Amino acid sequence: MGTLNELFDPDRVAVVGATAREGAVGRAVTSNLLADFDGETVPVNPNYDEVLGTPCVDAVDEAEADVAVIVVPPSIVLDAIEACGEAGVRNVVVITAGFGETGEDGADRERRLAELADEYELNLVGPNSLGIMSTPSGMNATFGPENALPGGLSFMSQSGAFVTAVLDWANDNGVGFKDVVSLGNKAVLDETDFVDHWGDDEDTDVIIGYLEGIEDGREFIETARETAAETPIVAVKSGRTSAGARAASSHTGTLAGSEKAYEAGLDQAGVIRAESVDELFDAAGILGSQPLPETDSVAIVTNAGGPGVMATDAVGDAGLELASFTGETTAALRESMPEEANVHNPVDVIGDADVDRFREALETVIADDNVGAALVLAAPTATLEFDELGEAVRETVADTDAPVAACLMGGDRTREPKRKLQAAGIPCYFDPARGIESLATLAEYRDIREREYADPMSFDVDRERAREVLATVRDREDNRLGVEAMELLDAYGIATPAGEIVDSPERASEVAAEIDGDVVMKIVSPDILHKSDIGGVAVGVADADVADTYEDLITRARNYQPDATILGVQVQEMVDLEDGVETIVGMNRDPQFGPLVMFGLGGIFVEVMEDTAFRVAPVSEPEAREMTEEIQSAPLLRGARGRDPVDLDAVIETIGRLSQLVTDFPAILELDINPLVALPDADGDANAAAVDVRLTVDPEELDLEGPDADPERPHTEEPHQ
Amino acid sequence: MGTLNELFDPDRVAVVGATAREGAVGRAVTSNLLADFDGETVPVNPNYDEVLGTPCVDAVDEAEADVAVIVVPPSIVLDAIEACGEAGVRNVVVITAGFGETGEDGADRERRLAELADEYELNLVGPNSLGIMSTPSGMNATFGPENALPGGLSFMSQSGAFVTAVLDWANDNGVGFKDVVSLGNKAVLDETDFVDHWGDDEDTDVIIGYLEGIEDGREFIETARETAAETPIVAVKSGRTSAGARAASSHTGTLAGSEKAYEAGLDQAGVIRAESVDELFDAAGILGSQPLPETDSVAIVTNAGGPGVMATDAVGDAGLELASFTGETTAALRESMPEEANVHNPVDVIGDADVDRFREALETVIADDNVGAALVLAAPTATLEFDELGEAVRETVADTDAPVAACLMGGDRTREPKRKLQAAGIPCYFDPARGIESLATLAEYRDIREREYADPMSFDVDRERAREVLATVRDREDNRLGVEAMELLDAYGIATPAGEIVDSPERASEVAAEIDGDVVMKIVSPDILHKSDIGGVAVGVADADVADTYEDLITRARNYQPDATILGVQVQEMVDLEDGVETIVGMNRDPQFGPLVMFGLGGIFVEVMEDTAFRVAPVSEPEAREMTEEIQSAPLLRGARGRDPVDLDAVIETIGRLSQLVTDFPAILELDINPLVALPDADGDANAAAVDVRLTVDPEELDLEGPDADPERPHTEEPHQ
Repeated sequence: MGTLNELFDPDRVAVVGATAREGAVGRAVTSNLLADFDGETVPVNPNYDEVLGTPCVDAVDEAEADVAVIVVPPSIVLDAIEACGEAGVRNVVVITAGFGETGEDGADRERRLAELADEYELNLVGPNSLGIMSTPSGMNATFGPENALPGGLSFMSQSGAFVTAVLDWANDNGVGFKDVVSLGNKAVLDETDFVDHWGDDEDTDVIIGYLEGIEDGREFIETARETAAETPIVAVKSGRTSAGARAASSHTGTLAGSEKAYEAGLDQAGVIRAESVDELFDAAGILGSQPLPETDSVAIVTNAGGPGVMATDAVGDAGLELASFTGETTAALRESMPEEANVHNPVDVIGDADVDRFREALETVIADDNVGAALVLAAPTATLEFDELGEAVRETVADTDAPVAACLMGGDRTREPKRKLQAAGIPCYFDPARGIESLATLAEYRDIREREYADPMSFDVDRERAREVLATVRDREDNRLGVEAMELLDAYGIATPAGEIVDSPERASEVAAEIDGDVVMKIVSPDILHKSDIGGVAVGVADADVADTYEDLITRARNYQPDATILGVQVQEMVDLEDGVETIVGMNRDPQFGPLVMFGLGGIFVEVMEDTAFRVAPVSEPEAREMTEEIQSAPLLRGARGRDPVDLDAVIETIGRLSQLVTDFPAILELDINPLVALPDADGDANAAAVDVRLTVDPEELDLEGPDADPERPHTEEPHQ
Repeated sequence: MGTLNELFDPDRVAVVGATAREGAVGRAVTSNLLADFDGETVPVNPNYDEVLGTPCVDAVDEAEADVAVIVVPPSIVLDAIEACGEAGVRNVVVITAGFGETGEDGADRERRLAELADEYELNLVGPNSLGIMSTPSGMNATFGPENALPGGLSFMSQSGAFVTAVLDWANDNGVGFKDVVSLGNKAVLDETDFVDHWGDDEDTDVIIGYLEGIEDGREFIETARETAAETPIVAVKSGRTSAGARAASSHTGTLAGSEKAYEAGLDQAGVIRAESVDELFDAAGILGSQPLPETDSVAIVTNAGGPGVMATDAVGDAGLELASFTGETTAALRESMPEEANVHNPVDVIGDADVDRFREALETVIADDNVGAALVLAAPTATLEFDELGEAVRETVADTDAPVAACLMGGDRTREPKRKLQAAGIPCYFDPARGIESLATLAEYRDIREREYADPMSFDVDRERAREVLATVRDREDNRLGVEAMELLDAYGIATPAGEIVDSPERASEVAAEIDGDVVMKIVSPDILHKSDIGGVAVGVADADVADTYEDLITRARNYQPDATILGVQVQEMVDLEDGVETIVGMNRDPQFGPLVMFGLGGIFVEVMEDTAFRVAPVSEPEAREMTEEIQSAPLLRGARGRDPVDLDAVIETIGRLSQLVTDFPAILELDINPLVALPDADGDANAAAVDVRLTVDPEELDLEGPDADPERPHTEEPHQ
C-alpha cells in the first residue's frame, strides 16, 4: 500500500459505472464530482458516449485516472477492480454494496476483492462505502446529497448514514472538513491507515471518527499514539454495550471485541473518546481552534451567580479545578469592580455589568499565571449587549495564550454573537456545563501530548522451557492447564513458592523436607476442578504427615472420580497470607486487540466489586504501575489500616513478565495467576509469589510459532529491578 | 400562611415604589405588569400622581391589592411590609436586595422581615427576588426583560439570572410556563411551599426548579413525595461539588448540607435530578407531553445502521432495555419491509426507505405488547422527506398510548419538522443518545409514581433509659461517648454482646463467669482513643485470667496517660467474626435534612472503597432494605464465595432501630455502630450484634426534649420480626 496523498488529491477521477439515469448511484457520484471538483471527472461506461454532458470512455484504461470510483453491480465489481489494477489505477473507492455485510457469498466476494487489492497494491476504500471527499480540490466522490465545507477536521465513519447526517448538520452550522471517508466494510484500508495518513497531513487539525470496530488493535494503538502526539484524535466507538455490540455486528458484520479492550486500547492509543454526537463535535471544535491550557485551573467570569455555581460544579465533574487567584489579581479586581462583586473565583461582575466590566475582569483573570483556561458566562440583562460581549471576548482571546470558552445564556439574541464567536474559534454554548466540558477536553489532550511512552517491559526469559510446558497441552483432552504449569511462570521469572508435583509418598516427603516449615498439598488433576470441595487440598501439613497425606489425597480423588487423570500431588511451601495482599493478574485474548492484561485485588475485589484495571499487552513499566494505582482498592497495596505497604515493584514486574509471556505466545488464550500474593518489601526476597495458575492454550497456534518468532523484539537483562 | 392561589392569581397588584424613572427596577416592574396583566396594576408612591399613565396612590392601604410587590430601598422595606400587613395585603413579593446575602446588618434585617411576615401571616416571596409571573392572567411582576409564554411548566429558581436566561431561551424555543417564581433569599416562602401549591394546581403539568439549597429537608421530602405522586418534579440542585457548594454559599449565603444528604433526600422525595440546563428542559419537556411507558423496553426504528447502534448503546447507558419483539411483529415486519431490512430491534428500514415504510415499521412495533416506548431515528436520504416523516410520527403517536421520541439527524431542514413535532409534544433531537435519555426520564418518573411509601420503622423502646445514657455526656469534658454507651443501643433494642463495664477485678471475674467461653476486655476511657495501640484491648481472655488482665489493662492505661479518666474495663462476650460479616451503621446530622443514616460493610469497604448507602431518617423498612441491597458489596451479605447468607432482616431491623433513636433525639449529632456483626440466620438468636459504638451528643439539645417530645409518633409492638 502506498501513500494516500493521491487518493485524496487526484488530478483525474474515473467513475466506473457512471450513468445519467435518475436515482442511480452512478449519476449521483458523477454529478457530485462534476459540481465542485477542480480536477477532471471521467465517466466510464461502454453504453454511453457522454454522461451529464461529459465525454464518457468505454473502459477504465482509457481514463488515465488516479482514483477510480466503482459503482457497478456487485457481480462485476471484481472485474472492474482487476481492470483498474491492469490500467495502473492505484486508488479505488468501491461504493457498491453486497459484500461481507450480506452473508457467505458476499464474504467470499470480499475476500477475493482484498486479494485483488493486494495483488495490484491498491489503496482500496470500501466496499459498501458512501465514498470520499476532500475539500481543497472540491472532490466529492460520494453519492450523498451534500458536499462538505472546507475546514480542518478530517472525518472517517464506519456508517455512511452518519456521514450524511453529520454533513447536513455541519453545513448549516459552519463546521468544515479537510477530508471525509466513509470506511464501508474496510476490506483493505481501515481506520489505522487514515489515522496514519492524516497524522502527516498539515491541513488536518483534528481527526474525528465514528467506529464500530477496530481491525487490528495493536497496530492501531501504535499508529494512533504517534499521530496523537501532533494531531488530536476524537472518536465515537459505538457498540459499547452488549446490546449495542450485537446491533453493530448485525449492521456491519464486525466481530466485536470486548468493551474493556476498547476502553484500554483507545486510551493507550491516545484517542479522546466521545459518547455522543454532541460530545464528538464539541471536542473537535475546541481542539481545532483553541490553544492547550498549561494547567487544569479554570477561571469563571460571570454576571449571574446561579449559573456561576453550575459552572463551578461542572469544573469538579470534569476533573478540573477552580483557579486560586494571586493577591494581585484579587486586588486588581477589587479595584475595578463594584463593591458587591465577587472578586474570587467564580468572579461575579454582577447583574448591572456592562461589556467593559466583563472585559476588564476577563483580561485580569487571564493575565494571572494560576489561570489555565477561562469561561465567560453571561445571562441576559438590561446593561449587557451579547454582541458587544462577543466582540470583547474575541479581542481578549486574540491577545492571550490561554484557551477561552463562552456561554451566552439566552435565545435568538445569542445566535449571531455565538456564530461570530465560533467563527473566531471560540466555542459558545448555552449550558455552562458544556462550556466547561469543552475546556476539559483541551486539558485531556494536553495530557495525551505530554505522555511519554516507554518500551514494553522485557526480561531475560527461558522461552524454550515455556514452550515445552505449553506443549504438554497436546497430551490433554481439553486445552486447559492448571497448577502443573507453574513451571511456565518460573520460565518467565515469575516467583512461585518452592515446591514440586510428585507421584509418590516418598518423593512427597523428600520435597517437604527441603521446604522450611509446613507445606500445602493439593491433588493435581485436569478432571477435578473444585479441589477443596472434595478434600483435595491439605493446608499446614507437617513433614511427618506428608506421606500419609499423599495417600489420603490420592484416595479421595480416586473415590470421587475413579476415571480422573491424576497427575500427582503438588507439595508447596506455605505462603504467609496474613502479611500479604492477595492479588490477581490475568489475561484474555481479544479478537481485535490481542492479549489484554488484567490486575486487581483477589477474591471479592475482582469478583464482587469488579475493581479491575486492564491494559493491552505488551505493557510498559509506567502502564503496569498505573494498573496498580488506578484500582479503587489501591490503598490496600499502599498499606491502609496500619499494615505495611507491599512491594509494588515486585507486583509491577510480575505484570510485565506475564505481559511478555502472553505476547510471546499467541497460543495462550487465557491465563490467571490467582492468587499472586504481594508481600511487604523485604530486601532480597521475591515479594510477589504466584500461588496458583490456570490457563487455556490453543495447541494449533503453538505449532505456528517458534520460540523466537519475533526476532526484532529486544531482550535486555532484567532492566526493572 | 394561607393558600398561594391569591399570590399567583390576584385581581389587583400594588407596586410599592413604582416610578417612571428610566432604569429603575420600580419602572420595569410597573411596566411589565401594565403590559400584559389582566387585573389592575396599582402604582404606590407618595411622590407621584401617576406612573406610566396609570394613577398612583400614596400608600398601600389605598391600593386594595391582593399582592404587593416591594421595590423600595432596603432601609424602608420593613416599614413597607408592615404597611402591607396593616392594610390587609396577604401576599408580598420583596424584590429589594440587601438582606441576608450582604452580611450581618442585612441578616438582621432579614430576621425582622421574617418576624413581620409571621406576625401578619404574609405569603412573602424574597427578599432579593426577581419577582413572580403567572401566565393565565398575564401577570409579570418581575423586573426582567421578558414575560413567559403560557404553558404547563411551573418554575422556581434560587437564581434570578437563571430565570432571565431560561425565559430568553424558552420564548425563542416555544417553551411555556404556568407560574414562575424567583425565590430570592427564601426568608418566608421556600421550595416546599411552592411544590405543595403546584401539586394542587391543575394547570401545572411539571414542576421544575433550580435550587442551591433546601431549607427544611424533612418537610420537603414529605411534601414532594405527595406532590410527585401526581405531578413530576425535576430539579437542578447546584453546589453539588465542594467548590460549587462554596460558590453557592458565597452567592446566596445558603449553608450547604452535604451532597450525600441531598442525593438521598431528593431521591427519597421523588425528585428527578438534572445536572445541566439541557437535562432539565429535556426532562420537563417530555414529562409534560408524553404518556408514561408501561415497561422499560424500547423499540428503535431507523433508516441508518450506525446511528441505530448509537441509540442502542444509549438504551443500555440509560438503564433501559432493547425490546424483544413477538413473533407476529417480526413476521409482520418481514412481510412489509424489503429483504435487506433488519426486522429485529433496532429495526433498520434501510437507506432507501420512504415515509410509508417508516410509518409501517413504527406502527408495527408500537402495537407490540413487549414495546414500552419507541424512538424514531432518521438520517437524511434522497427518498425521505423529514417533513412527511414528522407528520407520520405525529399521526402515529396520536393513536398510541406508548411514548415516542424522535431524532432527525440533520441541519436546517430539520428545524421546521422538529418545531412541529415539539409543538405536538413529541421531543425531537439530533443526537440519538438524547432521544433515548428523554424516554428514560419517563421510565424514571413512572417508577416514582409507583413507589409505595411505608411508614418509618417503629419499635417499642425505652426512651427514658436512652435519655439517661445520653445525659451522662454532661459529666464529660468533651461531648463524645464510646463503648460505655452500649446501654443506649440496648434501650433501643439493638442487640449487643453480653457484657458489662466493671470497676474491679472481682466484678470482672463475675461477669466473665456468666458469659459462655472466653471474653474480650477493653479499657474504657474517653481520653484514650486508640485503645489497641497502647495494649488496652485483650482478646480471648479465659475466665481464670480475667482478674489479672483487669489489673494489667488499668496499669497500662495509667502508665500511658496518668491523668486519663478511666471509667472501668469492659468485659464482653466474644462475637465469632469468622462466620459473620462486619458492617457499619452510622449517622450524622445534616443542617438541612437532619439525621442521615449510613450503611456499609466494615473496614475497607466503607473506608477505602467508599461503598455506602445513605437515607434521610426516619427510614421505612423498604428503605432500610434498599440500603442493604444497593451497596456494591451486597453479594457478601447474600453469601458470596460459598459462605452462608447473613440474616438480612436482623440488619434491616438494626438500621430501623438506629433510625428511630436518632430521630427521637436531635441531641445525637453523630453515631457509629462499628462493627455491627451480621451473622448467618439462626433461629431465635440475635443475628446482628453491635460490638462497639461511638457518638457525639449536644447536651444543650438534650435539655430541649422530653422522652415523648413527639406524641403523634406511632408506637407499635415490634412490627418487624
